[in-house]
Amino acid sequence: MIELVAFDGDDTLWQNESIFSMTHERFATLMSRYVDVDHIEPRLFATEMRNLHLFGYGVKSFTLSMIETAIELSDGAVTAADIQSIIDAGRAMLEHPVELLDGAGDAIEAVSRTHRVMLVTKGDLFDQESKLARSGLGDRFSAVEIVAEKNERAYERILTRHGVAPSQFVMIGNSPRSDIAPVLAIGGWAIHVPHELTWAHERLDDEDALAAHGRYRRAASLADVPALLADVA
Amino acid sequence: MIELVAFDGDDTLWQNESIFSMTHERFATLMSRYVDVDHIEPRLFATEMRNLHLFGYGVKSFTLSMIETAIELSDGAVTAADIQSIIDAGRAMLEHPVELLDGAGDAIEAVSRTHRVMLVTKGDLFDQESKLARSGLGDRFSAVEIVAEKNERAYERILTRHGVAPSQFVMIGNSPRSDIAPVLAIGGWAIHVPHELTWAHERLDDEDALAAHGRYRRAASLADVPALLADVA
Repeated sequence: MIELVAFDGDDTLWQNESIFSMTHERFATLMSRYVDVDHIEPRLFATEMRNLHLFGYGVKSFTLSMIETAIELSDGAVTAADIQSIIDAGRAMLEHPVELLDGAGDAIEAVSRTHRVMLVTKGDLFDQESKLARSGLGDRFSAVEIVAEKNERAYERILTRHGVAPSQFVMIGNSPRSDIAPVLAIGGWAIHVPHELTWAHERLDDEDALAAHGRYRRAASLADVPALLADVA
Repeated sequence: MIELVAFDGDDTLWQNESIFSMTHERFATLMSRYVDVDHIEPRLFATEMRNLHLFGYGVKSFTLSMIETAIELSDGAVTAADIQSIIDAGRAMLEHPVELLDGAGDAIEAVSRTHRVMLVTKGDLFDQESKLARSGLGDRFSAVEIVAEKNERAYERILTRHGVAPSQFVMIGNSPRSDIAPVLAIGGWAIHVPHELTWAHERLDDEDALAAHGRYRRAASLADVPALLADVA
């Protein structure tokens, strides 16, 4: 018996990686004046991974990592004007309209008819709250949980708080690392809705093994979610 | 009958503003090479206020605001090396040991003997979770709420979630704006523990009026909290 169904936000209900992707292009264009374009992406990813334990996820962390990468890649030659452009790119991300993915509202509505529906999203609290407010979906959820990292402990804490056993919980999301693996590991169900853009850090090497798990379901799109949920329940 | 007692974190249980203060000095020293030192603080505060609606609170926001201020104050002459120093100053803040304020552990323990005790802190989720973990106080609280902004709505949401009426709730903290005014406004009780360093943004013009409120109590230090709470309850 499923008691609680949670949706992920970024790249499950609304576009996120596309906004990062746009900024990566902007950054590459800017930095191509200083350095061979092939070096830019790997170095930026390395800076992000190095900073993750201290900065966490989100646009502000990403902006700081872009600035550090720019200084490193240019050997300190990057101009203040270019650094301001990087901050402006970060600001543009935070101001970017929230674009719902196809079928987001319908999927939440369909699931709400039969289940308690929650949002579980990770990253920068301020930015996530702002996106949720601008998404217009805020009042569709019976609860909202914004966490710093979606790992097994975070899911266990959420379920304890809501008085739900893992076997009564379904998580719906695009990220193998954040939405699928930890939920299956603690005994919950997961409906994977892959997104064409998924950040390398959110991918896992053993995604095939995950997909073979008995409590794993894969949806081609959000429109498939209600039927898959009925099958689980 | 008081059902729930919440402590603020920053500058109530652990030092925070002192770390910002240290960084302000570091920033002023750096920027004094470019501009008259009197211009630095007002411009930094103006940048922070301008960015607050988009960046929110916390070290990463502050670091981005320092970088923008450095670019503006230097008319674009600030070097990449100096910008890296600013990022390093931000990193040092995030890595700074958590220094508990005198009597923090004792106050929580004393209150726990008679009441459910919660932490309600605002700002950057990742940084606050990290500070809580490093404070060693994590398992002393029956619940932890980290919010983007401590306003009336945020407190109402927390109390609803925990099934407590405002009149059964006491908030303990140093910030008139975040810990005292909104709690009194929704009908709760507030114990104000002033800290010698309080960020200008957390101050209010009408603090005397707050202090005259019937549900306001003022503690000289955390050691006074249990007695004031007994008086309220």
